Amino acid sequence: MRAVVMHAPGDVRVEEIEAPMIVEPTDAIIRVTATCVCGSDLWPYRGIEELKGPTPMGHEYVGVVEQVGPDVNDIKVGDFVVGSFVASDNTCEICEAGFQSRCIHQVMMGSIGTQSEYARIPLADGTLVTVRGEPTERQARSLLTASDVLGTGWFAAVAAEAGPGKTVAVVGDGAVGLLAILAARQLGAERIIAMSRHADRQALATQLGATDIVEERGDAGIAKIKELTGGYGAHSTVEAVGTQESMMQAIGATRPGGHVGYVGVSHGVELDGMNLFFATVSLLGGPAPVRRFLPELIDLIMTDQIDPGIVFDLTLPLEDAAAGYQAMDERRATKVLLTL
Amino acid sequence: MRAVVMHAPGDVRVEEIEAPMIVEPTDAIIRVTATCVCGSDLWPYRGIEELKGPTPMGHEYVGVVEQVGPDVNDIKVGDFVVGSFVASDNTCEICEAGFQSRCIHQVMMGSIGTQSEYARIPLADGTLVTVRGEPTERQARSLLTASDVLGTGWFAAVAAEAGPGKTVAVVGDGAVGLLAILAARQLGAERIIAMSRHADRQALATQLGATDIVEERGDAGIAKIKELTGGYGAHSTVEAVGTQESMMQAIGATRPGGHVGYVGVSHGVELDGMNLFFATVSLLGGPAPVRRFLPELIDLIMTDQIDPGIVFDLTLPLEDAAAGYQAMDERRATKVLLTL
Repeated sequence: MRAVVMHAPGDVRVEEIEAPMIVEPTDAIIRVTATCVCGSDLWPYRGIEELKGPTPMGHEYVGVVEQVGPDVNDIKVGDFVVGSFVASDNTCEICEAGFQSRCIHQVMMGSIGTQSEYARIPLADGTLVTVRGEPTERQARSLLTASDVLGTGWFAAVAAEAGPGKTVAVVGDGAVGLLAILAARQLGAERIIAMSRHADRQALATQLGATDIVEERGDAGIAKIKELTGGYGAHSTVEAVGTQESMMQAIGATRPGGHVGYVGVSHGVELDGMNLFFATVSLLGGPAPVRRFLPELIDLIMTDQIDPGIVFDLTLPLEDAAAGYQAMDERRATKVLLTL
Repeated sequence: MRAVVMHAPGDVRVEEIEAPMIVEPTDAIIRVTATCVCGSDLWPYRGIEELKGPTPMGHEYVGVVEQVGPDVNDIKVGDFVVGSFVASDNTCEICEAGFQSRCIHQVMMGSIGTQSEYARIPLADGTLVTVRGEPTERQARSLLTASDVLGTGWFAAVAAEAGPGKTVAVVGDGAVGLLAILAARQLGAERIIAMSRHADRQALATQLGATDIVEERGDAGIAKIKELTGGYGAHSTVEAVGTQESMMQAIGATRPGGHVGYVGVSHGVELDGMNLFFATVSLLGGPAPVRRFLPELIDLIMTDQIDPGIVFDLTLPLEDAAAGYQAMDERRATKVLLTL
């Protein structure tokens, strides 16, 4: 089958690899109908994360079930499905508490790859959710975001305790940050401050529900957030970048007793204990337990209450994946959809 | 008046200093009836925190109101009062959200000193709570703990979301850790694991509600907690030490989706962002908003539902404060009460 393989930083190729087969009796094989390039795929692309040889890429997917293992009971061949970027049994105590991304049997889909014609989905009954009805093309694009960026932005907003009466600040104007804005609006936040200095993303942020834009970064950005919130800081802050600067900006922008939801994969971040102690904010982050939110997100999408698919600003056939990576790396695209 | 003054690490003296006067119209002056030595007083005593010249010590207190400023309305001369180790207006948005220790007008009582015959209490109406009725000697000792160690342990347990059905691990067997055990029990925790290797403190931990004792520390301690919790880790962990080792032990002992409440004043702690990301636990800590809990804690004490005063295992007259510091430094005492 055709699949995206990264050979080295900057070197992404679409080539023939072996099609996946059922390995565990709880596996399913899906025919991928759409996948996409993630901001986190750029870490190895930029040489910041090490590659151990040629690596099949991708962890976001929607598709049709082609085959199921003997222990798969709920997912059926022919189902149109969405799943999280982390496979989970959805039955262990961690899953039951809503943290499926840290399931005791978790499998990172990035270790398998989904930017390909077919994909093996471990723990299919726990991981996949079947979409009822026939999605429109627009709905299908939005369902793909539920697999990671929407689910991750949603988790960040929930972790930051966005809700009625709250002022929410969002650090990061990539797809996750933008969809955290959508989530905060859905969760009823009173005011949503997008921290962005790019006109196109500011426009998208506003379209998705941002009420204010702050262009300043670092200490100046923190000062601006305080100025906008009576000197107190935001109640809820989403961090969706993963750098030292973005993390300090998020913590600093939050009032004591407030909440920071951080979902940018941390790279080189060190938190000083004393600073954190006196910040007196709640920190919750990590790989988002997207599976917790999937049923609700699918419902919101299939009833046209949300349209997160608008974050895709470049659509390419899988064969042109390299151009997609390049466009995201050069920030010419926010989020690239790959069609099959 | 007589007051405890630290001149240098290890050099604590009781000497004559000027009695406090009303400075701000919102101040009160109290006659201190009991005060105590805090684990955090040991940081400068051990030379880990810098002293800027001779420093009046102490931030815990109960006493009788002697004088009030013209803008004090609720607190009356003659009231027997308890207050937090942080003075707060109790009216700003941060206070109203229950984070009085980070009040926008906060004054750290440690910057004034309460190990003395009298103490100036800023923002008296916001800071002090009047105790109704006549406390017994036992109740008075317990009320003194509410000023910091009980309130701090309680906050840690609340921040860790201790409650029914939860397994709570407590890192640190000082007075705060011990009273976090009491708090976790009051909050309805199912199982409380005290991490302690000192027989006397293990006994006190058990008396206060611990159901299990773990003597191991570091990775061995984490492994033991996991073994006791079906491989998952504790739902709720209290960190009450403030070192790198204790913080990593607390985070490591907590299951994904669990909560760490940290109240040990961080000294030299650095949290690795990537580790924290994949731990996927909620972190909340800082100087405890004791004022939030004072009315409830006073009620529990005055109705003899809790007896936190048992953490005082050495009682000395104020004049012998130096011996009290030494006993705590050498771990011969858990918590030293100073009488006046």
